Amino acid sequence: MIIDHIGIVVKSIEKGIEHWEKVFEYKKMTNVVINSRQKVRVVFLSKENSLTVKLIEPTDESSPTYKFARKGGGLHHICFKCEDMNKELKRFSEKGLRVLAAPQPGEAFGNENIAFVYAKQGLNIELIETDIKAGRLF
Amino acid sequence: MIIDHIGIVVKSIEKGIEHWEKVFEYKKMTNVVINSRQKVRVVFLSKENSLTVKLIEPTDESSPTYKFARKGGGLHHICFKCEDMNKELKRFSEKGLRVLAAPQPGEAFGNENIAFVYAKQGLNIELIETDIKAGRLF
Repeated sequence: MIIDHIGIVVKSIEKGIEHWEKVFEYKKMTNVVINSRQKVRVVFLSKENSLTVKLIEPTDESSPTYKFARKGGGLHHICFKCEDMNKELKRFSEKGLRVLAAPQPGEAFGNENIAFVYAKQGLNIELIETDIKAGRLF
Repeated sequence: MIIDHIGIVVKSIEKGIEHWEKVFEYKKMTNVVINSRQKVRVVFLSKENSLTVKLIEPTDESSPTYKFARKGGGLHHICFKCEDMNKELKRFSEKGLRVLAAPQPGEAFGNENIAFVYAKQGLNIELIETDIKAGRLF
């Protein structure tokens, strides 16, 4: 289980992309894709030898990230990738972490299984099931 | 300029360390060190092929992270390392970012120059001046 990316909530994904391109010299790895389950628009950006970043813009008021965006947005979650989702979720539960969203295929990116977990002390964790050694799917 | 680590504010650094060791299988890279300027206790943790994490616990109510910790804590900032702090801060200012704390030597870790910048849409950035190719100082 290693960190794959961090998720950053923004009010405007277009302004966010411009910001990460111009200020931090990141490059878009994907188009902006709508995730209809989470009600968000997302895009991945990367830079050589640096951490991959996902920008997230809620599409409407019922999105789980809507309130966070309205308050100004910012760092939202850490995404870990793992090879056995059920094993890790069982381990998390045994250590007292709370599963916020059970695993389901992530429609936007390769249909890996994705789950959300609350990891105490204010930390949101996204968990993706994928072949770690194979690298990114996009 | 590449991402060096992320900073996570916690109410209890001891509980945070235990959490990152047991749940995410990270290892402490340093002792817990007091940064008297920022009024925080900090520790770095790492894991092979994964992002380095810094846990931050405010030492008293006047710490810039006190309110954030009291509200529950969580993801606080992204730290970029760069080779020319003044050049990057000038570039940031030209792009409308606001410098929150001017560069000063970071007492806890190698005395690199450290600055804090607010990067719009809720994002706090720490900037460390260091030799990127030489890797970490600790």
